[in-house]
Amino acid sequence: MATSRETTPRLRILLGAAVALGPGKADLLEAIGRTGSISAAAREMNMSYRRAWTLVEAMNRDFREPLVETSAGGAGGGGTRITEAARDVLDRYRAMEEKAADAVADEIADFTALLNGPPG
Amino acid sequence: MATSRETTPRLRILLGAAVALGPGKADLLEAIGRTGSISAAAREMNMSYRRAWTLVEAMNRDFREPLVETSAGGAGGGGTRITEAARDVLDRYRAMEEKAADAVADEIADFTALLNGPPG
Repeated sequence: MATSRETTPRLRILLGAAVALGPGKADLLEAIGRTGSISAAAREMNMSYRRAWTLVEAMNRDFREPLVETSAGGAGGGGTRITEAARDVLDRYRAMEEKAADAVADEIADFTALLNGPPG
Repeated sequence: MATSRETTPRLRILLGAAVALGPGKADLLEAIGRTGSISAAAREMNMSYRRAWTLVEAMNRDFREPLVETSAGGAGGGGTRITEAARDVLDRYRAMEEKAADAVADEIADFTALLNGPPG
């Protein structure tokens, strides 16, 4: 949750021309891990279930190992969870984002002076 | 133009929760500078004119100085150009993107090993 005048660099990792992992997918993955549910995660992110599902499918396709696993039915009902591979991907992504942001912290501060404050 | 297995980190600079400048806006700004036309730039980027115009309006609103200037009519017809402020913003943005990418180059290389190759 950004504070009102915060200017933050975010990192997108492209795979060819497509975004393999960016802030939206990373946040979605975390929310699925926290809620154990794609629909709950989608709600949290104000995203349609369809959109969340499309992003999950893309991540499962783009990474060598699946990041989200869904098990249908059974006595306890179906379940959705993120995999160990997903936790590894998230840790690496957050570490890269932090390192990249640190590298350009001074430049970002200067850049911010060129921006108007956000509305509200 | 990404080559087939290229994995590139891109930088988005957020203003509060919104993206003040990211790869799409930066590329659009450059294309407008090169073509002198929002519609030609939009065509180059496979973007609708309406979408390009919305992004230009957002940039002109988010930065203290206008980045794109349009002059209507006159003997030579109307013209669109990017401002000195826009060239400064683009230079800073490209420099930050390069510096951030350099900072995480090793991590990106490791991360790439977790990805499938892009289709095609």
